[in-house]
This record gives sequence, structure tokens and C-alpha cells, in this order.
Amino acid sequence: MLPYCHKVQYYETDKMQITHHSNYVRIMEEARIDFFEKIGFPYHTFEEKGIISPVVRLSCEYKKTTTYPDEITVEVSVAECKKLKFTLAYTMSVDGQTVFTGTSTHCFLGENGKPVPFTLFPAFYDAMQQRAEK
Amino acid sequence: MLPYCHKVQYYETDKMQITHHSNYVRIMEEARIDFFEKIGFPYHTFEEKGIISPVVRLSCEYKKTTTYPDEITVEVSVAECKKLKFTLAYTMSVDGQTVFTGTSTHCFLGENGKPVPFTLFPAFYDAMQQRAEK
Amino acid sequence: MLPYCHKVQYYETDKMQITHHSNYVRIMEEARIDFFEKIGFPYHTFEEKGIISPVVRLSCEYKKTTTYPDEITVEVSVAECKKLKFTLAYTMSVDGQTVFTGTSTHCFLGENGKPVPFTLFPAFYDAMQQRAEK
Amino acid sequence: MLPYCHKVQYYETDKMQITHHSNYVRIMEEARIDFFEKIGFPYHTFEEKGIISPVVRLSCEYKKTTTYPDEITVEVSVAECKKLKFTLAYTMSVDGQTVFTGTSTHCFLGENGKPVPFTLFPAFYDAMQQRAEK
Repeated sequence: MLPYCHKVQYYETDKMQITHHSNYVRIMEEARIDFFEKIGFPYHTFEEKGIISPVVRLSCEYKKTTTYPDEITVEVSVAECKKLKFTLAYTMSVDGQTVFTGTSTHCFLGENGKPVPFTLFPAFYDAMQQRAEK
Repeated sequence: MLPYCHKVQYYETDKMQITHHSNYVRIMEEARIDFFEKIGFPYHTFEEKGIISPVVRLSCEYKKTTTYPDEITVEVSVAECKKLKFTLAYTMSVDGQTVFTGTSTHCFLGENGKPVPFTLFPAFYDAMQQRAEK
Repeated sequence: MLPYCHKVQYYETDKMQITHHSNYVRIMEEARIDFFEKIGFPYHTFEEKGIISPVVRLSCEYKKTTTYPDEITVEVSVAECKKLKFTLAYTMSVDGQTVFTGTSTHCFLGENGKPVPFTLFPAFYDAMQQRAEK
Repeated sequence: MLPYCHKVQYYETDKMQITHHSNYVRIMEEARIDFFEKIGFPYHTFEEKGIISPVVRLSCEYKKTTTYPDEITVEVSVAECKKLKFTLAYTMSVDGQTVFTGTSTHCFLGENGKPVPFTLFPAFYDAMQQRAEK
């Protein structure tokens, strides 16, 4: 799968003249949405079915600073996929050097705010399972 | 009316080591929401009635730069209030020096996406009219 | 010139379920930086010479709402270029429909904080002049 | 110590009509800066001495959603303070209910980009040590 590419924007930098650390969480989201598109399950198609997918947990390791006009390459993989939670892992790099690693854990909630098992979307669940086993 | 106070946050600064210009638009929103609270019509009470109030037009004049840890004082006034649009004017200052002036124009839309005249909320409309005449 | 393309990100939407109005100001910046790259004067090359280019003035007209996962096409043109200030005009559209128009006015400041005339960068000034005359 | 209070802003919400998860990372920064001010070591005084304090690691647990116009109360404590790294712990609550917990780990870097031990700032180091032991 082609990695996601994010060009650091000027407005993402801060007074330390580096990309503000909160923006990596946003880049994780961009890469996650791109990942679901690429594996054939665009995020908005779940929303159209009344599903939302909030973030349950995040972890971030900042290895090297980046700044405008760096281009960040993001590799996304499935770290784990159970029935009610999946975890994605992210590795970001600039010119081949790792600058950031992180994970995000998500669930699906229905319109009543209750957890929805991924097994209700078997094609999605299978695709995630297969990737998790790699 | 007490002016609104916004402390510039570190994440609002950029590589030029100043408050990024887009954040003044967010500070305008903070001050606008505070203004409606202070005049007795909190914005969320309109939302609860199915009204949304999108921004129609913005103008911004950047007079002096600010940065973390400046405290920005924001004065909000009603520049104009007609039946379908109102315009607020904002003056931001730090230590008595004007750093920014701007205006924002808004309408009310109902759940069908159609404009809603402010006269449907007579107490609100009167309060805005009176302030516009000053 | 190929227009700039911005995919609306989930984190750019708000409670009204539309792209938050402040983000258009950030998309203007993205498109502006892309524009300077395309005409051969990447913004960071000015920064490397000790020049910063703050925003002096902004105007924004919001015509239609957008949201995730819309793709916004941004056309940038030079509205005016004088010795100390230039103004860019932006037209954003989704599927051929204009959603936003705006302008931004900028100057150049040197390391001493004083205005720097664009004529110190004659190739840049000429390129901007020519585009302004169109 | 009085906890930090953050009013959720409209621009911090997203299409799910909740506070976007990336904004908690920004609220952590706000609360951290407030914490250093309250214990007598404002962050900008370190910057004035040529020290920057990048984030090394973050962890976030999202317990309950929040939205505009919630008021988030943030308690900050020192989880650990060694010579080159300290970790702060954050508990955010709304109306007495925990909505978020997280930690952030930081180091100090000098102007040459090299780590600076906190023992160079003995009063700061002592204050952090004492709080870590509680």
C-alpha cells in the first residue's frame, strides 16, 4: 500500500519553529482516513450508516522534530483487531528517518451511543483481521 | 460590558514566533460566544431550537503581532443588525495597544437550511437593535 | 497553472457538521504557499534570507458550506502588487460550484521588523507584476 | 492548587458534535503552562534562557465525550521527575465526572539542540521532585 504523505503546513508550526506536537494527532487521523479509503472502507460510509468511531486511546512517541516545508510519509498498519476495538500503528518519517511513532485505538458506536461489534460489518472485520495477522 | 480576555496559547504561535493569523478568527468566535452569553442569549440556546448561525463574511486587519504569553483583550460591538444579517465589530488590544480589528457577518438558518429572520426572536432582535444604534 | 486541491479533513469540521470557517484562512495559506512554489519562489527561500511575510489584511466571503470528505479546488491570482504590499485573490470551489472567495494582503519584513520593498527581489517583483496585470 | 479550567470552544468540536480528540492534547499544554506558572516557573522564563522543552511522549485515554459549551477542569500532577525527563499526569473532568486522563513526558534542550539536565535549575528541579514524591 502506498504510504500517506503530509506536507507540513506553516500554520502547523509553533514558536519553537517546529511542527506543534498536537498536529501529529491530526496527521494520524488524515492517514487513518486515507488507510480506510485505500482498503475499500471509506470512513464516511460508516457515518452514513449511523456509526461513529471515536478514539479510545492514543500513544505518541516524538523521535525527531519536523517543520515546514518537510514532507512526512506515514505508514499505517493494523496492530490489533478484536470484536469491539481495533488499534492502528503509525510510523512517520522524513527522508527515510523515523520522526514519530504512535498508536490509536477505536471502537464503533451506534446512534444510541452503544458499542457496535465490527462483526456486523463482516467484510470490514475480515479485512482488518487479515491485516492484523501480518 | 467587561471585555473578553484571551491568553495566547503556545499552540497558537507559528514559525514566525507570533500568533498565527488564522487564530484571530477563532478568538473572534470565542469573544462572540462570550458576547452573546453576556447579553443573555447564549449561542447554544439557539442551537437547541434548531438554529445554526454560519459566518457569511469576515474582514480582518492585523495591526501589530502578538505572541505567547500575551493577553488579548477583545471588545465586541454590534456594527449593524438587519432582519436577516447582523455584523459584529471586534477590537483586540494588548496592554492598551490595538493589535487587530475585524468584523464578522452572520445569518440564522433553520433545520431546512433556509434563512430565519431574527424577528422570530424579538427579545434578541431588540437587544441587537439597541446595541447597533449606539 | 494547476489549481491547489485541499481535501477537507475530519478535524476541520465542527458541531454544525461543516468545515469550520477559520479553516478557510488556513486553506488560503496552503494555496498561497503552493502558488509561490509554482511560480518559482518558494516561501521558505524568502525566510532563509531573513524575510518574513505577515498577513496585513484578510477578507472572506462564505458562499456555500463544505464538509468532510469534500475536495476543495483553490484558484489563486494576484489582485495587486505594489512595492510594499501585494494582494492575492482566492476562489474555492467544490464540484465546480464556488464555495468561498477571499483576499489576503501581505508585506515583507526584514530581521529588524522594518518593511522591505519587493523591488529588492526583482525577479519576484516582475513575476508578481505580470500576473497582476492579467 | 486550583485546577485549570478550559471552556470548550465551538471551533474545537467536530462533525461527531464532540470535542475533537486532538484538542485534548492542546488543553494538556494549556494546563501544563498554567501549572508551571502556578508553581512559580513560567514556561516563557525558560525560553528566555534559551531552553526549549519539546514533548517526548504522550498518552491519552478518552473516557467520555465532551462538547461546546462544557467546562473542563484539569488537574495536573508530577508523575515522575528524573534529571533529564519529567512526566506530568492530567485528569480532566466535567461536572465531577472524569472525561480524560493522560500523561506527557518532556525534556529540556539547549540552543545547540542537546539535552539540558534539570539540575541546572535547582529550584525548579527541587519543586518538581517534591511534587513527584507526593
